[in-house]
Amino acid sequence: GGSPLRLGRPCLRRSRPSRHGGSGPPAEPCPKRPYFSSFVARTNTCGELRSAHVGQKVTLYGWIQYQRQGLFLVLRDFQGLTQIIIPQDEARSHVKELLSSAPVESVVRVTGVVSLRPPGQENPKMPTGDIEVKVETAEVLNSCKKLPFEIKDFIKKSEALRMQYRYLDLRSFQLQYNLRLRSQIVMRMREYLCNLHGFVDVETPTLFKRTPGGAKEFLVPSREAGKFYSLPQSPQQFKQLLMVGGLDRYFQVARCYRDEGSRPDRQPEFTQIDIEMSFVDQNGIQRLIEGLLQYSWPEDRSPVTTPFPSMTYEEALADYGTDKPDTRFGMKIVDISDFSQRLGIHFVQNALSYPHGTVKAICIPQGMVSDIFTYSVRFILKSLLTKFLGQEQQSELIQELKMQVDDVVLLAAGEHKRCSALGSLRLESADLLEAAGLVLRDPAVFHFLWVVDFPLFLPKEDNPTELESAHHPFTAPHPSDTSLLYSDPTKVRSQHYDLVLNGSEVGGGSIRIHNAELQRFVLEKVLKEDSEVLSHLLDALEFGAPPHGGIALGLDRLISLIVGAQSIRDVIAFPKSFRGRDLMGNAPDYVTAEELEPYHIQVSWPVAEAEAKKN
Amino acid sequence: GGSPLRLGRPCLRRSRPSRHGGSGPPAEPCPKRPYFSSFVARTNTCGELRSAHVGQKVTLYGWIQYQRQGLFLVLRDFQGLTQIIIPQDEARSHVKELLSSAPVESVVRVTGVVSLRPPGQENPKMPTGDIEVKVETAEVLNSCKKLPFEIKDFIKKSEALRMQYRYLDLRSFQLQYNLRLRSQIVMRMREYLCNLHGFVDVETPTLFKRTPGGAKEFLVPSREAGKFYSLPQSPQQFKQLLMVGGLDRYFQVARCYRDEGSRPDRQPEFTQIDIEMSFVDQNGIQRLIEGLLQYSWPEDRSPVTTPFPSMTYEEALADYGTDKPDTRFGMKIVDISDFSQRLGIHFVQNALSYPHGTVKAICIPQGMVSDIFTYSVRFILKSLLTKFLGQEQQSELIQELKMQVDDVVLLAAGEHKRCSALGSLRLESADLLEAAGLVLRDPAVFHFLWVVDFPLFLPKEDNPTELESAHHPFTAPHPSDTSLLYSDPTKVRSQHYDLVLNGSEVGGGSIRIHNAELQRFVLEKVLKEDSEVLSHLLDALEFGAPPHGGIALGLDRLISLIVGAQSIRDVIAFPKSFRGRDLMGNAPDYVTAEELEPYHIQVSWPVAEAEAKKN
Repeated sequence: GGSPLRLGRPCLRRSRPSRHGGSGPPAEPCPKRPYFSSFVARTNTCGELRSAHVGQKVTLYGWIQYQRQGLFLVLRDFQGLTQIIIPQDEARSHVKELLSSAPVESVVRVTGVVSLRPPGQENPKMPTGDIEVKVETAEVLNSCKKLPFEIKDFIKKSEALRMQYRYLDLRSFQLQYNLRLRSQIVMRMREYLCNLHGFVDVETPTLFKRTPGGAKEFLVPSREAGKFYSLPQSPQQFKQLLMVGGLDRYFQVARCYRDEGSRPDRQPEFTQIDIEMSFVDQNGIQRLIEGLLQYSWPEDRSPVTTPFPSMTYEEALADYGTDKPDTRFGMKIVDISDFSQRLGIHFVQNALSYPHGTVKAICIPQGMVSDIFTYSVRFILKSLLTKFLGQEQQSELIQELKMQVDDVVLLAAGEHKRCSALGSLRLESADLLEAAGLVLRDPAVFHFLWVVDFPLFLPKEDNPTELESAHHPFTAPHPSDTSLLYSDPTKVRSQHYDLVLNGSEVGGGSIRIHNAELQRFVLEKVLKEDSEVLSHLLDALEFGAPPHGGIALGLDRLISLIVGAQSIRDVIAFPKSFRGRDLMGNAPDYVTAEELEPYHIQVSWPVAEAEAKKN
Repeated sequence: GGSPLRLGRPCLRRSRPSRHGGSGPPAEPCPKRPYFSSFVARTNTCGELRSAHVGQKVTLYGWIQYQRQGLFLVLRDFQGLTQIIIPQDEARSHVKELLSSAPVESVVRVTGVVSLRPPGQENPKMPTGDIEVKVETAEVLNSCKKLPFEIKDFIKKSEALRMQYRYLDLRSFQLQYNLRLRSQIVMRMREYLCNLHGFVDVETPTLFKRTPGGAKEFLVPSREAGKFYSLPQSPQQFKQLLMVGGLDRYFQVARCYRDEGSRPDRQPEFTQIDIEMSFVDQNGIQRLIEGLLQYSWPEDRSPVTTPFPSMTYEEALADYGTDKPDTRFGMKIVDISDFSQRLGIHFVQNALSYPHGTVKAICIPQGMVSDIFTYSVRFILKSLLTKFLGQEQQSELIQELKMQVDDVVLLAAGEHKRCSALGSLRLESADLLEAAGLVLRDPAVFHFLWVVDFPLFLPKEDNPTELESAHHPFTAPHPSDTSLLYSDPTKVRSQHYDLVLNGSEVGGGSIRIHNAELQRFVLEKVLKEDSEVLSHLLDALEFGAPPHGGIALGLDRLISLIVGAQSIRDVIAFPKSFRGRDLMGNAPDYVTAEELEPYHIQVSWPVAEAEAKKN
């Protein structure tokens, strides 16, 4: 338990004389609100002033959001907006001159007295809307040249432009909110892990070496010819070694790296909340994570309830056609093979005769009303009911699928085990229904789900007679399936668990193998891998390694779902483009041959580029 | 202010029935102690049990530290040691068998009843020394093979062996203490920055591009031929851009990278507490850092007092011969040029005739008694006093240097501005005095010191007619010296400040240039650098960049000084060797040519190695 995260709404406190050099928040009891004006000359932020401050002399620092005819301006900082009245008297004409000529987005200091706005001019939409500050002195700290775009949230900008001028985009309300909320959620997570549950924050190396199958790991040339570090995809090996080292409870907000080339909504570097515990089982990790999320959950979002529901991998595939089901809406997949068998329709029975032959259906509520399916599809559906089925069979099907008037049913007959086609169809139907105005997946509602009992191994995609780890080779088999490991490894379930939020995978982990012999068997006999590269880990398991398990939460994805961002780029201060480029600083960039020399490497220019360089 | 960090001494609380799956610490008011037994089946850690627990049934998990004749064993976990009494009755012979045959460092579970030790057998040196646990059931979770060394702190191991088996070394009391204290100090720093003072924890990219003069930056090949990311030495540019973006108060526990080849006590990756604030001056940052260190300072170390003393760069060089003086002891350098001038000794006057010619001295208290200087040196000293100086001059010198009987004086005459030779001599003298048994530099005493007013530019080492930044090109000039920038830049002091602890630099920062024109002048006119690579930063300054400044604390060094570690390697979980190698996992390592292909690079083997490969 614990109270959810309170976002830093301004705390009403009397402003005090400038505490330049003051070292602590004010003594008034206001424990959960940070003091934003310590160590600087401002008395208040631009979001703080209320009618209770009237009569006080204040100093604010901020950006000119708006200025009108030399009469007033709106000053903005990270916490809000304050209306500033520009003096009109002759004695302060220089202040008027300064403030009326400064371009918008110039950064200024103003000192003045808080006053009530004239009656009728209050702005109830603005937290500081009851007051205004009558300027006495002002200073333009830095002027702003013409902007490439306006800092207003409603103006649509191309994302490339926003990324090029990221430092301007960061001034927007939404990015300020996203980054501050992210910081606060992570801080609450740290409190929960470190202060409440005794976890140790340990930093693990990011310069390591390639792991087997680490094709997506960035390389870092070293000064030893031919030798490279690699940037790990996760601290997996290190956190297990920390358990062997008796650290007992480890966590880290870990920077991870994955080189996937160009992929939308992936970043070459990303962050995970990385956790490992000794002497724990699957249930322990799940309860820990539920407590963690509940404790750190922002107050201004709809709350999460614990424990989270759990579903096996098999159930998820059967009911939702995916291992990360979005459980905010129904439209589950229904197996109507038995029913279909009895229909006596030739092509249906043919489909059912294959090893994994099934007939499955999803029923889309109000699919007809929302008028979203093409005539051809609708025609097939209608024809199925009316042409192939008798009246009694129609009723039976309607009952089986709990169909109502105007529902649309999609059927798939064929040799499928995972129903991924129907799973995609379910999501696409939801898109179509929402495009037609129905709300199926409220982004303000949070459905967490554990998916468990994954297979330990899967057939390799390029060579299905060989096996690869469904997750990674350190995952422990399900205790009930251990003996199958030696007879039929394909049937072994693992102690892996995924955490799914609204249809997105936001975390995954497992109980690990702590027995060296078992680990060696999995690596060498099942996966046919050279265990030599992992000899340090295998060695470590032989020295009294404790049973252990853990999890990693994808922080960028989690935060983007919490704030309802379109992309993880909106919760990262300086994201890369989907091609992995920093559009602001222009990275990656060319380097000279001399700079490569200490690393004993040279560029192998692709033929076309080499030719172009010649000419 | 704020109370200093309390280290996690065990909290005496009644142990409760196994709360497997429990989600929170117990309800008893014990706010600052984490609950180490949540989410697992143990009831207590091995450091917790006291006489108040007598009669309770407990379950402990830990490693066998010691076992004697099947009678008892000592169980160890991260929190302490507990004596376990092995049952001797026939009914539990299998438990006896299990526990007496398990090798040391095997990991076991024991369940039993807490009992008082028989009178006279208490161990007052052991926090759990009043009790023992009488085992009822036990389980060997993982056996330990023969150890490469014993896990006892008093056994000297070679550091290479310790690093190879780092996971075993981590079980030692000292490394557990160091890593846990580090975690707790950083957590307290976060509380101070984030919860008390409204700083935002922002993660900045580590895949960026080369900065000008970034010869020490690791390169990361990208999939675009010839283009490389680089791993930044600090988030300097990003934190300044965050200020332009209105983040106002930024901090990050930032991973930084520096490729310096082989250097003792440096790591290719290291961590800094990285801080930046808008609208702040030098005084504001200094008070912030003093508050931060005081708030996060461990309770079991001698406290630090604030404000820290401050010294100019010039004073530091003149008095201590270094810009990071160890102020725990005296032996300051004294300029006796005036006195020496009057001596009329030819070689002294010759030295004084040079532009920076001076005669300086340090007086080493009890230098004679401690019998540490070689006869030759002593002879010269004696001869100076007796042969060259008259009685009156001798008295004058003795008074000038406040010499006492048995003190030794070292003199240096010559053309020196920085006194670095005498500075080194001062430290070496301290080494010698301490080797002779005197305590000059108590490692338990903490002397923080600000060093300020550094020069903004220094002559380039390889070409003294050109200038380079003393720190980095973003450092603002001292307000009093701004006009000198255009006339005599060598005379300009900066707004840089270093934080020194016991003679080690543990932090440094500055007020930055926020004016684009000034920044461009410094880059192009003073430093003669191509400002194009920094165009994004120069651009950013033109869009209403606020005045800002910051600091970075070297976390590894700071923690190593706090815990009194010999090397920063002792406060890092998985350090690299001084050659930059991971001796446990064997990184960096060779990769295949195929693995290099996507990055369009190939290895240029040095001639010797290429030859060797051929044969």
